[in-house]
Amino acid sequence: MSAVLIKERVVEPRITLVGAGPGDPELITMKAVKAMQTADVILYDALVNEEVLDYAPAGVERIFVGKRSGKHSFTQEEVNELMVRSALKYGHVVRLKGGDPFVFGRGYEELIYAANYSIPATAIPGLSSSIAVPGLQQIPVTHRGLSESFWVVTGTTVSGEISNDLYEAVRSKATVVVLMGMNKLRRIVKLFQNEGKQKLPVAVIQSGSTDQEQLVVGIVDTIVELVEEKSVMAPAILVFGEVVSLHPSFQPIREFYKALSEDF
Amino acid sequence: MSAVLIKERVVEPRITLVGAGPGDPELITMKAVKAMQTADVILYDALVNEEVLDYAPAGVERIFVGKRSGKHSFTQEEVNELMVRSALKYGHVVRLKGGDPFVFGRGYEELIYAANYSIPATAIPGLSSSIAVPGLQQIPVTHRGLSESFWVVTGTTVSGEISNDLYEAVRSKATVVVLMGMNKLRRIVKLFQNEGKQKLPVAVIQSGSTDQEQLVVGIVDTIVELVEEKSVMAPAILVFGEVVSLHPSFQPIREFYKALSEDF
Repeated sequence: MSAVLIKERVVEPRITLVGAGPGDPELITMKAVKAMQTADVILYDALVNEEVLDYAPAGVERIFVGKRSGKHSFTQEEVNELMVRSALKYGHVVRLKGGDPFVFGRGYEELIYAANYSIPATAIPGLSSSIAVPGLQQIPVTHRGLSESFWVVTGTTVSGEISNDLYEAVRSKATVVVLMGMNKLRRIVKLFQNEGKQKLPVAVIQSGSTDQEQLVVGIVDTIVELVEEKSVMAPAILVFGEVVSLHPSFQPIREFYKALSEDF
Repeated sequence: MSAVLIKERVVEPRITLVGAGPGDPELITMKAVKAMQTADVILYDALVNEEVLDYAPAGVERIFVGKRSGKHSFTQEEVNELMVRSALKYGHVVRLKGGDPFVFGRGYEELIYAANYSIPATAIPGLSSSIAVPGLQQIPVTHRGLSESFWVVTGTTVSGEISNDLYEAVRSKATVVVLMGMNKLRRIVKLFQNEGKQKLPVAVIQSGSTDQEQLVVGIVDTIVELVEEKSVMAPAILVFGEVVSLHPSFQPIREFYKALSEDF
């Protein structure tokens, strides 16, 4: 006679918001990997490199909740609901987001939603592309003598507009990093031009840290043309500031203007 | 007769600047750990948690090059020289820095120094405390309706002064994060008061992500007193902005002012 063992599993709902970093699967933290290893369900965004999902055990359900052209996209409300429902049903939900959960990631909205259902939620920061992507190109967001601060602004607010903060940022001496600004590049460039910053160095970096990475370096007056020439597209980050002049590709630009004997 | 094997080791000098993150040894990237595993020498700063060094194999030399009160501190020039000398002699030098190498980390100066000796150098970004430390406290640097941007400024420039950028930052609507500003808190607070922002929420977080973490939440007018009461000390980051009001400890502050029927 053998006893029948009934395997009961007590579900303890919890949610971990995890920043997956800029794209390279090695640019994720040890803590994020650990969280994924104990996940029951993973909900991930469009900006998350799918290779990152390989850190989770094979049986873990992976649900794509991002936006993809031509397909159904989840609304924020649908993501919130799915996240809570999955936690209540399966236990540990890892909510994997590109970059850092709180840098234009709507992470806090998801924390509030979890709290409304009394589901414990924690957040694990990730590398924000705003710092990491220029850094990988050896463009430092700060550098003695060139920049004592950096200002990270969204190019696309709730209403779809450029942030009002950008109107102030263009007037500052900060390195200005614009996320989600690629489809408004022309208008953003105009703001810098209106401030007389036609020759401010600019870098546009598409898909930073991944195999699809593309870099364009120029100045405010030339960047739109250069981006079109090289067919650089979103997702991309824009870096405006003297620090961009430290990049090796900026050297020929400097020399060109010197040759024209313009003040540079 | 047996052949005598002479083990020759060809030294291939190279340098990897690595961001070690805010302190918690698990908040380091997989890529950083990999770099440490192939290191011959590690040079690390005061802000690097020494537990992080355990990721390197046992035999790897670890050299502390940070500043500690009462002891000899390395100048930047001495660090640069040691870094290059170690690379030429031993091979792979991992230069481990707190946070991210390019966020007030003088990382680019070290890259230039390496380039002057034609030593290949790469950089691996790390979590900057400017984003990660508030994030771990569930204070989002951006949040819809409260903040469309964040501005990271140094409280201590080359000359030892507050950055001029901070005078502009206090006027902006950005979340303002000040690094290395703890010993100038009184003066920084004064700048916000001069702008009429007496009631702007503020958080001061010491040693974020470590066992020594301490958090104080208040408003511009009360933060100096609160910090003194709780003996919060450097290293700490300062966060000024409406997003701080999302922290649970802010609720009693809001209620206090409501009870006074003040406009809040």
